[in-house]
Amino acid sequence: MGRVYNFSAGPAVLPEEVLKEAQADLIDYKGCGMSVMEMSHRSKMFDDIIKEAEADIRELMGIPNNYKVLFLQGGGSLQFSMVPMNLSMTRNGVADYIVTGNWAKKAYQEASRFIKANKIASSEDKTFTYIPDCSDLEVSDDADYVYICENNTIYGTTYNELPNTKGKLLVSDQSSMFLSRPVDVSKYGLIFGGAQKNIGPAGVCIVIVREDLIPEEDVKNIPNMLQYKTHADANSLFNTPPCWGIYMCGLVFKWLKKMGGLEVMNQRNIEKAKILYDYLDQSDMFTGTVVAKDRSLMNVPFVTKAGDKDLEAKFIAESKEAGMENLKGHRTVGGMRASIYNAMPKAGVEKLVDFMAEFEKKNK
Amino acid sequence: MGRVYNFSAGPAVLPEEVLKEAQADLIDYKGCGMSVMEMSHRSKMFDDIIKEAEADIRELMGIPNNYKVLFLQGGGSLQFSMVPMNLSMTRNGVADYIVTGNWAKKAYQEASRFIKANKIASSEDKTFTYIPDCSDLEVSDDADYVYICENNTIYGTTYNELPNTKGKLLVSDQSSMFLSRPVDVSKYGLIFGGAQKNIGPAGVCIVIVREDLIPEEDVKNIPNMLQYKTHADANSLFNTPPCWGIYMCGLVFKWLKKMGGLEVMNQRNIEKAKILYDYLDQSDMFTGTVVAKDRSLMNVPFVTKAGDKDLEAKFIAESKEAGMENLKGHRTVGGMRASIYNAMPKAGVEKLVDFMAEFEKKNK
Repeated sequence: MGRVYNFSAGPAVLPEEVLKEAQADLIDYKGCGMSVMEMSHRSKMFDDIIKEAEADIRELMGIPNNYKVLFLQGGGSLQFSMVPMNLSMTRNGVADYIVTGNWAKKAYQEASRFIKANKIASSEDKTFTYIPDCSDLEVSDDADYVYICENNTIYGTTYNELPNTKGKLLVSDQSSMFLSRPVDVSKYGLIFGGAQKNIGPAGVCIVIVREDLIPEEDVKNIPNMLQYKTHADANSLFNTPPCWGIYMCGLVFKWLKKMGGLEVMNQRNIEKAKILYDYLDQSDMFTGTVVAKDRSLMNVPFVTKAGDKDLEAKFIAESKEAGMENLKGHRTVGGMRASIYNAMPKAGVEKLVDFMAEFEKKNK
Repeated sequence: MGRVYNFSAGPAVLPEEVLKEAQADLIDYKGCGMSVMEMSHRSKMFDDIIKEAEADIRELMGIPNNYKVLFLQGGGSLQFSMVPMNLSMTRNGVADYIVTGNWAKKAYQEASRFIKANKIASSEDKTFTYIPDCSDLEVSDDADYVYICENNTIYGTTYNELPNTKGKLLVSDQSSMFLSRPVDVSKYGLIFGGAQKNIGPAGVCIVIVREDLIPEEDVKNIPNMLQYKTHADANSLFNTPPCWGIYMCGLVFKWLKKMGGLEVMNQRNIEKAKILYDYLDQSDMFTGTVVAKDRSLMNVPFVTKAGDKDLEAKFIAESKEAGMENLKGHRTVGGMRASIYNAMPKAGVEKLVDFMAEFEKKNK
């Protein structure tokens, strides 16, 4: 039936031309006689791949020279441990968390294993449908950092303004908004993102960390694989990295550069999201679940106004038949969700909205 | 120039027909309209992939029902931490290590962060060129396990007989021999292997662990991602797994079944290694570096008898021109090394030996 429009929240749609390039080179990468999956990670060929990927993401995001870029394994979930272990356990052992969804909550809970983690704000009272006012929070005097999940994949909210951390470091999980818009890296102590939403396949997590925050010495009670120092000192080649995943991320970075960079992607993403939100705002059947000012450009959850579970199930089944996959909402929220990452073409969003309008007409 | 013979120690050669299948399905997996790299890990399609991979490795290795099979990230290096954390920290906090190479040594050093790790035998006195007699070692009374690296990638040794652990659990790093021959899983408490040598691409580590060894409760001071319980309870889907890597491993498992299973692979591997060792044993120019009885079937290090570095460099350069890649020895050993994993065809070994004979004739 050909390619579908894949609205999955992650792993998610990748640019078709990137997949085609990976396919063409799969057995014999650039005439070297082997697949990227078969290359020694110490070879010149792979060294070129990882170095170019790093140079390209540095260029795309404008990453300052005093930040390291690390290609790691274990996804965002492992960063929930590594962040407090590396940035706080060896300092004050205290950090502040703003809990705006499942992932921020998991990060907060995981940090509590190792440090005193304070929940200084939360939007759990209204099922995470908004971003709390973070302009004047009670940041702990001894907090080593303030932690946010900057785009909430499940609940579809995003920070349009960064919290006032009152001089403390900001740590951000950008997994579901990574490279979707320009960010000023210098405002953060550390940014991380699992690749499997906006950047590449699952199995790669990119960490951007200010050099001076990486503990200078080995920390005895932290596994060496969980120390940023281990990977920073070895330029992400301490052990065998997820080579294929890094290669795929590199292809996506090249694609983003070709598209015009993050400012262009941002404009595209604004335009795509507007098509969907505009429809939702005038619909008699459907409604978005998020406070308008905090809406994500990446993840758009919506429900039927009547909360009609049967109708929602029908919608999901029929959209699938029409070539649109993974519109079912997260199991903790229900309803529907359209994830419209960088690689989702505008035509996919238009098709979805046309389908919704048609569905609404037929089922009112 | 077409495909080369790739003697890399890892990431390493994969079966060409597996690569071709992955290539054909890359953009549109079995007509589902998306790539395996784009699929939700919670989708039915991916669930089939991971369940089939598990069923196939269970069948290939004859894994008993009371063992869990986990598909994890972080490679063997992360297991160096996870093994002592999960199998010893919560018990006696003592384990015995047999150090037969770099990787066993790293595992031993890493374990020392968390438990009392005893080195009960070592072959470091002779640059790890042999496996020590392990028939009557002084196993610690309170050891939670005895640890081995069963095939030493760098030094080219292998255990042809398992150590007498005197009733203690045996833990084995099988990375560079995984699925190369039948093993009796019931003799082990835990087996792990990084995929990137004999099974698939880098970024997947397979852990086979006896169920009763997995701590029943959450352990407060171990990161949740480093607890076997986390992954066992969720059937390796606690967080997004390295989906593409697991898919590739699954294809290799199917290939192994088609080839006839591990007994057939073992016969093939014996035959392939014999061609190379027989040549080395009669050569006037080259010699293997390992005691004959402990020779690995997977990794064959060799040097010039004269220790002639220039000649070795010439050999490596000319073999590369002749279409044989990655014959350079590990940086810690020097000389040459031919890794001849499952996916290396007999023709590749024959070509290498023909080339060596020719080189010897020309350069004597």
